[in-house]
Amino acid sequence: MRIGLLTSGGDCPGLNAVIRSAVLHGIKSYGDEFVGFKDGWRGLIEADYLELSRHDVRGLSRVGGTILGTSRTHPYNHPGGGPENMIRQLERHGVDAVIALGGEGTLAGAKRLADEGLPVVGVPKTIDNDLDATDYTFGFDTAISIATDAMDRLRTTGESHHRCMVAEVMGRHAGWIALHSGMAAGAHAILIPEKRVTMDRVCEWVEQVHSRGRSPLVVVAEGFIPEGAEEALAGKGTESSGRPRLGGIGEWVAARVEEHTGIETRNTTLGHIQRGGNPTGFDRVLATRFGIKALDLVHEEAWGFMASLSGTEIVKVDLTAALTGLKTVPMQRYEEAQVLFGR
Amino acid sequence: MRIGLLTSGGDCPGLNAVIRSAVLHGIKSYGDEFVGFKDGWRGLIEADYLELSRHDVRGLSRVGGTILGTSRTHPYNHPGGGPENMIRQLERHGVDAVIALGGEGTLAGAKRLADEGLPVVGVPKTIDNDLDATDYTFGFDTAISIATDAMDRLRTTGESHHRCMVAEVMGRHAGWIALHSGMAAGAHAILIPEKRVTMDRVCEWVEQVHSRGRSPLVVVAEGFIPEGAEEALAGKGTESSGRPRLGGIGEWVAARVEEHTGIETRNTTLGHIQRGGNPTGFDRVLATRFGIKALDLVHEEAWGFMASLSGTEIVKVDLTAALTGLKTVPMQRYEEAQVLFGR
Amino acid sequence: MRIGLLTSGGDCPGLNAVIRSAVLHGIKSYGDEFVGFKDGWRGLIEADYLELSRHDVRGLSRVGGTILGTSRTHPYNHPGGGPENMIRQLERHGVDAVIALGGEGTLAGAKRLADEGLPVVGVPKTIDNDLDATDYTFGFDTAISIATDAMDRLRTTGESHHRCMVAEVMGRHAGWIALHSGMAAGAHAILIPEKRVTMDRVCEWVEQVHSRGRSPLVVVAEGFIPEGAEEALAGKGTESSGRPRLGGIGEWVAARVEEHTGIETRNTTLGHIQRGGNPTGFDRVLATRFGIKALDLVHEEAWGFMASLSGTEIVKVDLTAALTGLKTVPMQRYEEAQVLFGR
Amino acid sequence: MRIGLLTSGGDCPGLNAVIRSAVLHGIKSYGDEFVGFKDGWRGLIEADYLELSRHDVRGLSRVGGTILGTSRTHPYNHPGGGPENMIRQLERHGVDAVIALGGEGTLAGAKRLADEGLPVVGVPKTIDNDLDATDYTFGFDTAISIATDAMDRLRTTGESHHRCMVAEVMGRHAGWIALHSGMAAGAHAILIPEKRVTMDRVCEWVEQVHSRGRSPLVVVAEGFIPEGAEEALAGKGTESSGRPRLGGIGEWVAARVEEHTGIETRNTTLGHIQRGGNPTGFDRVLATRFGIKALDLVHEEAWGFMASLSGTEIVKVDLTAALTGLKTVPMQRYEEAQVLFGR
Repeated sequence: MRIGLLTSGGDCPGLNAVIRSAVLHGIKSYGDEFVGFKDGWRGLIEADYLELSRHDVRGLSRVGGTILGTSRTHPYNHPGGGPENMIRQLERHGVDAVIALGGEGTLAGAKRLADEGLPVVGVPKTIDNDLDATDYTFGFDTAISIATDAMDRLRTTGESHHRCMVAEVMGRHAGWIALHSGMAAGAHAILIPEKRVTMDRVCEWVEQVHSRGRSPLVVVAEGFIPEGAEEALAGKGTESSGRPRLGGIGEWVAARVEEHTGIETRNTTLGHIQRGGNPTGFDRVLATRFGIKALDLVHEEAWGFMASLSGTEIVKVDLTAALTGLKTVPMQRYEEAQVLFGR
Repeated sequence: MRIGLLTSGGDCPGLNAVIRSAVLHGIKSYGDEFVGFKDGWRGLIEADYLELSRHDVRGLSRVGGTILGTSRTHPYNHPGGGPENMIRQLERHGVDAVIALGGEGTLAGAKRLADEGLPVVGVPKTIDNDLDATDYTFGFDTAISIATDAMDRLRTTGESHHRCMVAEVMGRHAGWIALHSGMAAGAHAILIPEKRVTMDRVCEWVEQVHSRGRSPLVVVAEGFIPEGAEEALAGKGTESSGRPRLGGIGEWVAARVEEHTGIETRNTTLGHIQRGGNPTGFDRVLATRFGIKALDLVHEEAWGFMASLSGTEIVKVDLTAALTGLKTVPMQRYEEAQVLFGR
Repeated sequence: MRIGLLTSGGDCPGLNAVIRSAVLHGIKSYGDEFVGFKDGWRGLIEADYLELSRHDVRGLSRVGGTILGTSRTHPYNHPGGGPENMIRQLERHGVDAVIALGGEGTLAGAKRLADEGLPVVGVPKTIDNDLDATDYTFGFDTAISIATDAMDRLRTTGESHHRCMVAEVMGRHAGWIALHSGMAAGAHAILIPEKRVTMDRVCEWVEQVHSRGRSPLVVVAEGFIPEGAEEALAGKGTESSGRPRLGGIGEWVAARVEEHTGIETRNTTLGHIQRGGNPTGFDRVLATRFGIKALDLVHEEAWGFMASLSGTEIVKVDLTAALTGLKTVPMQRYEEAQVLFGR
Repeated sequence: MRIGLLTSGGDCPGLNAVIRSAVLHGIKSYGDEFVGFKDGWRGLIEADYLELSRHDVRGLSRVGGTILGTSRTHPYNHPGGGPENMIRQLERHGVDAVIALGGEGTLAGAKRLADEGLPVVGVPKTIDNDLDATDYTFGFDTAISIATDAMDRLRTTGESHHRCMVAEVMGRHAGWIALHSGMAAGAHAILIPEKRVTMDRVCEWVEQVHSRGRSPLVVVAEGFIPEGAEEALAGKGTESSGRPRLGGIGEWVAARVEEHTGIETRNTTLGHIQRGGNPTGFDRVLATRFGIKALDLVHEEAWGFMASLSGTEIVKVDLTAALTGLKTVPMQRYEEAQVLFGR
C-alpha cells in the first residue's frame, strides 16, 4: 500500500517517533510506501507532500517536533477540503490510506471523513492528556519531565530568598500537567481549571508553609480561575474565546499572594519549552507502539479507528470514543494530591 | 497510630518519595507518628530506627536512594527474626503497624508475616518491572530514562566511528529495561532473557544495518543467554547461582559480533547508574501515590495487602497476587519490538 | 580560627559548593571552626548564625541555592551595620574572620569594611558574568546550560509550526548569558544591552531565515533596548530605576517582529529557572576551588582580597580590581557572534 | 576559496559545531565553498568527500559526533599519503585549503604537512584535555558533565546500600576528567596516572569516610597505576602498548578495596558514554568560536597554525606549541583536590 501521514494541531514530542515506526514497520512487514503531507490537512488538500523513505525517518525516535510540519487547517472549512476533494487527491496521487496524528479536533475531523468514505485511521496526540479513550498520550510525560525539572530549580532559588514561587504550566481546560508536575515537585498548592479555589485558601496554604521556614511552591494551570475572581480576570486577562490568556494567571496569582501575605512572590511562566525538545523514554516507547499499531490498523482497513493505550496494552478504539468529551482531572485525584498541600 | 517504615532489597529511585508522602499524609490526615527502621528488616528485628518528623521528609520526592538504608536481611532467617520477635519489638517500641517497601522477596516475607499476625502492608518496588499485580513500579521509568540517554550518546560516537555499539542493561530474569530503552533509543537488536536468539541472527541484524552505512546498536539485558552458547558462557561467565555475571554478557556479545562480522564493536555496561539518582517525574508521581495509598491501607488495617497501579488507578491488591510469578516480557511484546530490528 | 561565612545578593548555583569546600578544607587542613551567618550581612549584624560542622556541608557540592539564605541587606545602611558594630559582633561571638560571597555590591561593601578593619575576604558571585577581575564566576555556566536546553526545546516546536521563537534571558546590563546561550543554541539574532540594534535590522534577520524555510530564533537579554524604541519602551515597560521590567522586552520584541514580518512569533521568558537548581560540573569545580582559595586567603590574612579565575588558575586579587566597572560584552565578541546571524 | 574540512582520531562532542560555524562564516563573510573529507585523512588521500552547503550544517551546533566520520588513518603511512599526493588531490578537486580537526597525532601530521607545503590549519580536539597550548578543548566539559551526573547517581545507590562506589573514567595519560568530575561529585579519592598512590592509602581514605557513616566514592582514571602494584597489573590488565586496558583498573581497585576493608564495593566503568551525545553549552560556544577562528586563519593563510583558547580569548598559535608534550595534571592541582579526600 501507499500510505500518507499527517500531523495536525499543536506539536508534541513523540510525533516523529510515530512517523518513524509506522514507516519502518510498513516497509519491512508489508512492503508499503509512504508519503508525508505537509502541515496537516493542508498538505492533503493541496497535495503538498514528500516521499518518506527509510532514510528519511532514521534517528527520528528521539527528535522532538514533527518533520512534516503542522497547522490548524480545518479539513472541511479550508478551500478544497471535505471528503470528496480529499478522496480525489488521494486517487490522483496514488495514496491508499491516511494516518492522521492529532488532538480532539483532528480526530473529530478524521472520524467524519472516515464515515464519508476516506480511508483514514487516527493516532491520538495531546500534550495536555485531556483525551478520553486512552490512558495517556505521548508528549504528556515529556511535559511533566520538563515542568518538574523547572520547578526543582525554582525551589532552590525560592528557598535561598525565602520567597514564594509560582509556576504557571500548560492546561487550559484540564489540569493534568499541573497535577502531575506539582505532585512530582512537591508543590504546596496546585490550582487547576477543574477546581475553583479562593485566593484566601491559596494564601492560607502559602502562609502555613512559610511559617515553618520553607519556601512555598504554587503550581497554576493556565486555565485556572480563582473562585470569586472571575470578574477581575475577565476585565483584562482573557482571549476572544473567553479563555484566560496564556501567561496571565500565574502573574495574577503571584501578585495576589504577595499582596495578601506580604511574602515576596515571583511567577515563572514555563510556556513553550513544555512542548519542545527530545521526548522522554516513556513517550518514545508509547509513540513507537502507536505508530506500529496505526499501521496495522491501516492493513486491517479499520477506518475511523485509532491506536490507544489501555493499561500496558495498545488497543484499537473507535474514534467516536475519543470524542465523548474532555478528560478532566476527577475530584478524587485532586483530593489525593491535596493531602500534601499547605503543611 | 505510630507507623514504622522500612525499605528492603536493592534500592530504587522513588523510595524516598513513598516515605515522604506516607509520612506527610499520616501527620496531616490522621495525626500519625512515624519511625523509620534502618536497613530493611534488620532495623525492625534489632529495633534500630529513627523518628520521622515532617521536617525529616521535606524535599524527599526528588531524592534518589532511601534515607532509611536498605539491606538483604531475611525477615525469618536473620537471628531474632520471625513474626513473634517482630511483634514483640513493635509492642516494646509502641509501633502499631509496618509499611514494607520491597521487591518479590520482601513482599513474600511481608505476606507470610501478615498471615502470622504482623500488622504489615506492602509497597511494590522493582527497578526491573518484573512484579506481577502492578502495571509498573517506580524506578523502572527512571532506569529507562537513564539507559535511553546513555544509548543516545553511544549512537553518536558509534556513527562517527562506523562501529557497532553494544549496551548492556539490567535485567537478570526479565528484559523489560532492555525492551523499553532499546525501543526508545531505536536499537537494531534487543536481546532479553525471555527469548533465545542465535548469535548468527544477531550478526545478521548488525550486518543489515551496517551495510546501509549506519552504526548498529545492540541492547542486551544482563540475563540474556544466546541460543547455542550456553556452554561457552557457563564455562566462565556465570555466578555461583548459575546466573550470568553482571557485566559479562555485553562484552561477550560484542566480542562475538566483531569476530563474526569484522565490524569494530564496543560494549558499554551501564551498571549501577541505572538505579541511582533523582527519579523522573513519572516515578515521583507513582511513588507519591503509592505512599498515600499504603498509609490508607494501614488505616483500613488491610494487612497483607499492597498498593498497586492498574491503568491510571492506584488500587489495593492482595500480596499473594504479587507473588504468583515473575512478570516477564510476553512474546507478543517482543515481536512488536522486533519489527524494528535489523532494517 | 573561627570563621564566618555569608552569602549576599541574588542566589547562584555554586554558593553551597563554596561553603562546603571552605569548611572541609578549614577543618582538615587547619583545624578551623565555622559559623554561617544567615541571609547575608543581616546575619552578621544581628548575630543570627548557625554552627557549620562537616556534617552540615556534606553533599552540598551539587545542591543549588544557599543553605545560609541570602538577602540584599546593606552592610552600612542597615541598622546596626558598619565596621565598628560588626567587629564588636565578631568579637562577642568569637569569630576571627569573614568570607563574604556576593556580587559587585557585596564586594564593594566588603572592601570598604576591610579598609576599616574588618577581617574579611571575598568570593565573587554573579550569574550574569559581569564582574571584572575574574574570567568567570560560578553560576554563569549553569545559566548557559539551562538557557541552551530551553532554546533547543523552543526550536523544535518553532520548526513544527513555522514560527519565529523569541527567548528572553537574564542580563540587565551585560549580555553574556544571551551571547553564550544564543551562540550555543544557534540563534539567528542575539540582542544585548551593549548594542543598540533597530527592529528593522532584527526583522531583516528573521525574514532571511524564514525565507529559507527555517524557524528563526531570537535571543534577547532583558536589558536590551532597541535603537529608536527608547520612548516606546519608556512609556510602559520600565521600573522606577529606569531599567526595562523583567519579562517585558521579550514580549515587546515578539510583538514587533510579528507585526512587521507577518510571521507568527512567540516569546518565552525563561525567568527564575536560570538561577536555580543543581550547578553544572564546571560550576561545581570553579566554586570548590574558590572556596579552597578563600580559606587560604583567610589564613594569609589577605583582608580585602578575593579569589578569582585567571585562565585555568585560581588567583588572589584585590577587591578593588573587582569594582572598576561592569564587565560588559566587548564589540569584538558581539561581531564574532554576528557572523552567524540571519543566514 | 574552496575549503576542505576533516575530523580525525577519536570523536568528541563539538566537532559538528566547529564544522557548522566554519562553513556558515565562510559562506556569509567570504563567499567560500566547502567540502568535507570523509573519515579523516583517508577522505583527503582517497578524494572521498561530500560538498557542504549551508543546508548540510543546519542545526549541527547541538549534535554530538561528526557528520564527516573519523578514523585513525595516518597522513603519511597510509598508501597514497604524504604531502605531494595530497597537494595533487587538492588541486585535482579544486580545494584551496584544509582545516584539520584532531588531537595530538592529527596536529603533528598537519604541522609536518604544512611545513612541506600543504595549506592546512588546525583545530585542537581532545576529550582528555591533555593538549598543551590551549586552556581547554571542546568535548572535555561534556565529558565532565556526563561523568558528574553518573557519579551523582552512583552516590545515591551507594548511600542506600552503605557501599563504596568506584567510578572509572577516561584518561590514559592525563587525569583531567577524573580530577574535575571527581571534584564536582565530591569524591573521597581521585586516582590519576600522574600520581602513584598505594592501595593502602586509598583504603585509608575509604575507611575514614565509611567510619563516619557515609558511602565512599572513588574516581579512577583508566590510566592510573597504584604504587607497588605495577607487576600485579602488568600480568593481566594491559594492552600490547603497555597501557592498562580500558575497563580494567576500576574493577581491580574495587576488588582490592573490598578485600582490604571488608566494605562492599562496586565498580562502574563509564566507557563510551563519556564521549557521545549533545555537547554542553560551554563546548558548543568554544567549538563555534574555534570554527570561526579557523576559517579566519585560512584567509590569513596561517598554514601550520591552529585556533586556541587563552583565558576567554580565541587566539592563533603555532601548531608546534601544541606538540611540546602532553598537558598532564600538575601536582599543585592534585594537592588542591586532595584537601577534600578522605574526611
